[in-house]
This record gives sequence, C-alpha cells and structure tokens, in this order.
Amino acid sequence: MNGAGSLLRTLTGAGVDVCFANPGTSEMHFVAALDGVPEMRAVLALFEGVATGAADGYARMSGRPAAVLLHLGPGLGNGLANLHNARRAGTPVVAVVGDHALSHAPLDAPLQSDIAAVAGSVSGWVRHSGSAAEVGADAADAVAAALRGQVATLVLPADVSWGDGGRVAPPSAVPARPVADPEALRAAADALASREPAVLLIGGDALRADGLAAANRIAAATGARLLAETFPARLERGAGVAPVGRLAYLGDAARHQIGAARHLVLVGTRSPVTFFGYPGKDGDLVPDGCAVHPVVDGAGAAAAALEELADLLAPGTTAATAPAARPELPTGELTAASAAAVVGALLPEGAVVVDEAITSGAGLPAATAGAPRHDWLTLTGGAIGYGLPAATGAAVACPDRPVWCLQADGSAMYTISALWTHAREGLDVTTVIYHNSAYAILRAELAQVGATGGPATEGLLGLDRPELDFTALARGTGVPAERVTTAEGLAAALRRAAAEPGPHLIEAMVPSPV
Amino acid sequence: MNGAGSLLRTLTGAGVDVCFANPGTSEMHFVAALDGVPEMRAVLALFEGVATGAADGYARMSGRPAAVLLHLGPGLGNGLANLHNARRAGTPVVAVVGDHALSHAPLDAPLQSDIAAVAGSVSGWVRHSGSAAEVGADAADAVAAALRGQVATLVLPADVSWGDGGRVAPPSAVPARPVADPEALRAAADALASREPAVLLIGGDALRADGLAAANRIAAATGARLLAETFPARLERGAGVAPVGRLAYLGDAARHQIGAARHLVLVGTRSPVTFFGYPGKDGDLVPDGCAVHPVVDGAGAAAAALEELADLLAPGTTAATAPAARPELPTGELTAASAAAVVGALLPEGAVVVDEAITSGAGLPAATAGAPRHDWLTLTGGAIGYGLPAATGAAVACPDRPVWCLQADGSAMYTISALWTHAREGLDVTTVIYHNSAYAILRAELAQVGATGGPATEGLLGLDRPELDFTALARGTGVPAERVTTAEGLAAALRRAAAEPGPHLIEAMVPSPV
Repeated sequence: MNGAGSLLRTLTGAGVDVCFANPGTSEMHFVAALDGVPEMRAVLALFEGVATGAADGYARMSGRPAAVLLHLGPGLGNGLANLHNARRAGTPVVAVVGDHALSHAPLDAPLQSDIAAVAGSVSGWVRHSGSAAEVGADAADAVAAALRGQVATLVLPADVSWGDGGRVAPPSAVPARPVADPEALRAAADALASREPAVLLIGGDALRADGLAAANRIAAATGARLLAETFPARLERGAGVAPVGRLAYLGDAARHQIGAARHLVLVGTRSPVTFFGYPGKDGDLVPDGCAVHPVVDGAGAAAAALEELADLLAPGTTAATAPAARPELPTGELTAASAAAVVGALLPEGAVVVDEAITSGAGLPAATAGAPRHDWLTLTGGAIGYGLPAATGAAVACPDRPVWCLQADGSAMYTISALWTHAREGLDVTTVIYHNSAYAILRAELAQVGATGGPATEGLLGLDRPELDFTALARGTGVPAERVTTAEGLAAALRRAAAEPGPHLIEAMVPSPV
Repeated sequence: MNGAGSLLRTLTGAGVDVCFANPGTSEMHFVAALDGVPEMRAVLALFEGVATGAADGYARMSGRPAAVLLHLGPGLGNGLANLHNARRAGTPVVAVVGDHALSHAPLDAPLQSDIAAVAGSVSGWVRHSGSAAEVGADAADAVAAALRGQVATLVLPADVSWGDGGRVAPPSAVPARPVADPEALRAAADALASREPAVLLIGGDALRADGLAAANRIAAATGARLLAETFPARLERGAGVAPVGRLAYLGDAARHQIGAARHLVLVGTRSPVTFFGYPGKDGDLVPDGCAVHPVVDGAGAAAAALEELADLLAPGTTAATAPAARPELPTGELTAASAAAVVGALLPEGAVVVDEAITSGAGLPAATAGAPRHDWLTLTGGAIGYGLPAATGAAVACPDRPVWCLQADGSAMYTISALWTHAREGLDVTTVIYHNSAYAILRAELAQVGATGGPATEGLLGLDRPELDFTALARGTGVPAERVTTAEGLAAALRRAAAEPGPHLIEAMVPSPV
C-alpha cells in the first residue's frame, strides 16, 4: 500500500469519510487512491475556498470533520479565508495540503513556498509528513487534533503519497473534552444568584436546544439578561426551542443590550469586543465596573456547564420555548424586510439556514423566530464568501434536510463557483441572492468610521456598473435560476424550488438599505 | 492630512498611480481619501485574487508597480495565489493590507490573524506601519522595495489611516540595479567561446527585443543552443523580433533540448528544474558533467549582460529575426490545433497575449511565431487563475493595445469575476475560453506521476457534469459573449470582437487532448 492509500484508509477508519477537493499534480496519487477506498466520498470544488468553506459547513452540521485536499501553498492561500472562518467557528477540519516531493523541495521549483507559515495562521495543528510509513499515524493525529475544534493541517509531500510501505493507523486518542472549572462555575453561580444586573453571554455548543433550555432557565430564575454571541457557528432555533437574542454587531447597540451589567458570565464564548475598531470608541464591550466570569471557552463543554448552572440556580424552573408563529406572506414591493417575511412564512421544518445576507439579513432573525425548528449558520470570522460553500457542506452532511442559503450579492462573487458543486452533487440547496447592487455594508461602515467620500469612494462601493446577472451566472454553472422583483414572486419561486429536487437559485432584487 | 491621504500622495508621487482594490471596513479611510487624490486610479475587483493578478499583469506591461488594497488576513489569503505568481515573475507590486486599528488588535476580534506570517510567504519586504506620521515614509520604502522586482507588503492599521499628522514622503532611493559580475561574465564568455556543446538559457528582461537580439547573435556566433525559460513573465516576439524557443515543461522533453551540453550559461534565470517531482526521475535538469555558469539572476540586468557578451563574442554578427508568416485560416473542426492556427492568423499588431491556455495552448507558440510583433505573458508560478486577472492589469497598463486572454476553462473558474472588471472598466480584452470540460493537464499528469485511477479519480478530473456555460457566465458579469464550435466560427467571433470596443468572451468548444 502506498502512503496515499494508508492516509485515506486511516481517515475513513477515524470517521472522516468526505473529502472536499481541488487537487493538482502533487495530489495525483491521493486522487488515484480514492478508487481503492470507496468509503471516502470525494466532492470536487472548482476553487479551494469552496472546498474549505464546505468542510466548515459540513462539520458544523455533522459534528465530524471532513477532509479538504489542497494544492501546495497557492491552493492553501485560496482556501485560507474559509479556514479562517472555520477557526473562528471552532470547526474541526482536516486540511491535507499536497506539497512537492521531499526530493524536489530543495530545488525551489516554481510552486514552492512556505506552506507551514501560511497554514499556521489558521491551524491549531500543523505537521509535515515525512514518509509513507508515518503518514497513516500523522493522519490519525490530524483527526484527533481536529476533533478538539480546530483546523488540523497535514502537509503531504508527493513522494510520501506515492512511496511504498504505507501503514493504516488506528484512530488516535482524542483528548477528553474540557469541563468547566468548578471554581469558575461556582463564581458564575454566585454572580448570577446575586441579583445584581447580570448578562449571561453564551456561544459554541450552548446554542443547541439543550444548552438554550438551560440558559433560559437560568435567566428566568435569576433575572440575568441572556444573549448569544453575535455570530454563532450553529444556532438551533424556531418553534419549540428555547429562544435567544444575539449580541448586536455594532458597538453602540451591543452596549445598549449589555447596559449597566455588574456581572458578565461567559459560557462557550469569549469576552465581547466590537468587530472593528472605530475612531474614539472603545472596542471592549465590557462596561466599567462589570466583573467578567468566564466559565468555559468553547470546545463542546458549554451546554454541560449551563446544565450544571441551571441545576444549581433554577432547579424548579421550566425553560420557555418559542411559540410557533409565522409572518403573513407579504405582497408587493420586494425589500429586505418583505423578503425576510417571505422567508419566515415559508421556511420548512428542519431547514438549515446558511446566512450571509449581511445588510439584507437584518430582519431575518425576528421573521423566523417562530418558524418550524431549524439551524442557523453564520459568518463567524468575517471572511466573506462563506455562504455558498458552507451551504455545499451542510447539504452533504444533511441530505434529508433542505438547505437555504441566504446570500448577499457582493459576498456571493468570492466563491460563486460553489454553485457548480451544488449542481454536480444534486444538493438540495436553495440560494436566495439579495441583489442590491452594492457593498451596502461598506457604505454603512464608511459612516461608522467617520469617513466621507465622493465619487471615487462610491466607485469602490457600488456594484451597479455593470449590473451582475445572477440568474445567468447560475445557469452558467448548471443551477436552475430565476429573478424575482416582488414579494409574491419570491414566495412562488421558493415554492417551486421546494417542489423540485436539486439546487435552485433565486435572484431577489432588493433596494440597497444605504 | 490623515495617514491615508499621505499614503496615497506618497504613492502617486513615486509613480504608483493605479490601485486594484477589494476593500473592507478597515480600509474605509483609504477609500475615502481617494477623492482627494485624483491622480490615483482605483479599479474595483470583486475578489482579491483578481486585484493581485491585475497588479501583476499591470507591472509586467508598464514596468511600474501598481498598488493593491486588501482587507486583513483573509483578503490577503484570497490574493495570495496571484502574489505567488508575481513573486515568481519578479514583478514589482505594492500590496497594502488593511489591518485592525492598533488599539483594536489586542482584542483578537473575529477578523484578527497573523498577517505578517502570510505576507512573508510571497513578499520580499513586509512592514507594519506604526503611525500616521510614518506611513508616508513607509509607503515610499514599499515602492522602492517593490522596484527591486518583488512584492512589498505594507500592513496598514485602520488608525494609522485615520490618524492625523500624515506626512507625504518623497520617493525613497531605489538601489542601483545589479550588474553582472565581471568574473561571471568572463567565465560565461569563455564557456561559450570554447565551442564545446553549450546551452544559453535566458529569462527576465533578456526576453525583450534587445536582449533577444543579443542572445541570438551570441548563439549564431558560438553555436550555443539558445533557450528561454519555460514560463516567462513577458516575452516579446513575432515578426521582426529575434526568436527564441522555450525550455519544455516536461522533464524528458527539456532534457532532450539541453542534450549533452557541457556548459549551461544562465542569464536572467535560475538553473533549470522540473516543475514537479516524478517517481524515479531527477528534478534537476542540468546534465551530468555540465558546468553551470550563472551570469546574472533577474532584476533587470539580463539584457545588458547579454549585450556585453554579444560585444565580446559576436561583434560582427547580426541577429536573425522572425520572418512575417501566418498560418492559413483553417476551417472545419475546432480543436486546440485549429484554434491556434486561427489565433496565429488573426493576432493583431501590438497585441498583449495572456496565456493560461494550459493543455489547449500547446500549438500556440509555433502558430504565432511570425505574427505581428506582440508580447506574451505566462503563468510564472503555477498558481492557476492568473489569466483573466492579468489581462485586466495588462489592459489598464496598455489602453491602446489589444489584449488577448487565451484561457483554459478549469483555470478560468478560480477568478471568473475578473470579467466584471473587464466590463466595468471597458477594457479591450478578448478572452478565448478553451472549453474542453476537463482538468486535462491533470489527466496528463496522472500518467506522468505513474498513477492510474478509475471512476473516483476521474470524478476529480472531469468538468462535464454539469457542463459549464461560459457564455452565460460572461453575460452574468456584463461581458458580451458567444460560443463557437468551428474554426471559421472562432475567426468570425475574433473579428467581431476586434471591431467593437470593450471586452468580449468567446467560448471555444474544443476536445480534451487527454
């Protein structure tokens, strides 16, 4: 068995059986070995950022890492933005970066570059495999490292792939999940029981139904204000699930939510800061005089910590759940607001919503709060171009659930070729492009940072010369598409998409909010 | 004046007056400052890889660096592949990477990452600007560093942009261009004069008309075999220019060209190696017993060194030049070969050809050798997705010259949104997509590396499920497009494109060669 074969068998043996791939010459033995390992499903992406974003979306929904296969330093570079998002989401990902043969590396051939330096910027674990005999064990270690909630990057020289003597390795031991420190838990319980103004800010796995129920019980029993982190990796919500509001993106609104809290209890998330710095404004959102009580920071221990806290603080309290409630289906003008109402009115049971709607998405949380139970995935790291790829991965992970990708137009263009993978794999992804012909978020941010601009500035913010035609772009990649200009048109298109298998794209023409 | 204003004015004062940009929030003051510096032309790209590839193409044709504006680590990641190509081309580029405000960086906000580590993998110079007062001088140093033939990356914190006290800096002194070491020149001259079998391998600025003329004189006078490096950044060629063949991509063919040379003289290029390593094959292309004579390694001194050598070795020799000669216009089946003949028959005077045709381009050099004088740009670093962006930059640099972008289908999809910039800027770029529905190069490389695969392997190499429709994709980005299926259809489409201003795309349906 060659190294590539042992690598693939080790991965599948450790439960990694999907590989999102954009290979090149140095990965040809890995690719050829796929025919001998039918347990591994390889999914081709036409751009590396699609592969890495798909791995992120896949693991967010399946709880298991996917592999991604990338081609040397430039391939890793193309995949870096969505690995950054995965890092910020705490997503397990096994990134396999093909490299020149060990014998070739000293020659500094044209594709040679410092892969480890680039990988280190997004990975919690990086290893350069040294031989065919070792690569199986390296792969097992990579999976174990990824399962700690991080990107694990295995650099795979071509001669390690093609070399004989590959040995399949058993799964490496996965470190026990961290548990909340009892003293930290006790301090948080005391703070919440004090009845002084308190905020309970939660994230990570606390944002699934069980964690949310516990958090709601704590809030009800203690009077603490409950908030979720601004950009959850995965938030379970809808009718029957205990609800949670999210900390606002903009600092002033977030400060208003936190108010004059004397205690800030953090479970599965870090102390809140603004997304960007702004002139004359503090980026730290902790109010003066507020004590911060970090209980546990991600990595799967947050829900359990909340349940412990709930047992202490709210033994007799039942969690409230969101009532079933949908907006009326609007008609007439299509705006971000009316589009949100249409989504809320029609979102199907069990949907996975991938949200990169940016400014057009402001009304979505409220409009969908009482929709049937669903999951909501957001842009954790701020690297745009995650929506279409993450939807790819979510649909591969959940073939029986409808995936709705709610996608801003500007961000869509970074990874538009993901649509082709939607078509190739027959994925049940319905993409709504909010076509407002602008980087509307940047127009808003321009004001936020206190800058003003004229025509030259607007030339970098407007996308209307020429107008993009997403219906044509979708057709170019093999995805059926239509453009809608009214609320009822959007509703009809969503119903048509739901009635047919496979991917669809709906280009929703909405005005820019700014 | 704020830091951003001083940065922009310093750049324009140093001759950098084009900025290819894909900005975000942290760059808003840079963007806003553009309205006060009308000498700077900002060109919006919908993806960072388009901006960096455009900067590469721009500088290859203008000889001057452009600036690129990128958004934090993920934006740099998206631009990394084409910065890698620029590094391998020795292209001057000033990369400005916006970063969080210095006051915000300690908070580890979601977009925070190690920018310097990523930048270092492609940049010969990296600096993190520390204050508004210093950023002007930093920019001047960045331009001087870039002019040494490398990527210079200036990391620009948002508060350095918005801070007061910006000072415009005069251009920094550019180090004198290196000249060939007299001893190295003498050793090379002795080797070439020895009449032992010799190869003269040239690259960099030796591949412009003057350098080629000198090299041809040397070859004629000494009997040395003249070859150009495999992937030139810019090769001047066509009728009236001294011709040169290129070292083959595949090792066996390259070894055949080099033969049993006893001397290998390198002018403006490095000692040749194969692009990839292959099982059982040596990547070093220098034959046993061959002495290598490096004269000068890039950075603009190659043509001058060749002229010195020619004065020594071939004082009475006149350079041969390529005769004017075009293929007959073929009719009938459209293949890579007949498409090459059409290109050779119709390539206009003064064209800039951006060649990312990969397998479909095999016949292009011969078919265009006697076409009217033109420049030929190639994929220097092997990071695919350079063609459409480089054509963008070449067209901005040379508004009076037609740009022909000869582009493989698979590679086109990495940076397809460049077409939108072609349309937005009204660039005279004619793109021919060689639509063969495969990563044909990988099918060939699969055999080269000695691997064989079945259906799972082919599933990562074929692009035919579903078929891409580049005509639809082009229309989606505002570029007029048509599909052609015959040689005469391609000729007619090229003539129509030439007769109209602005960009065009021609989807040429050709069979995969493998």
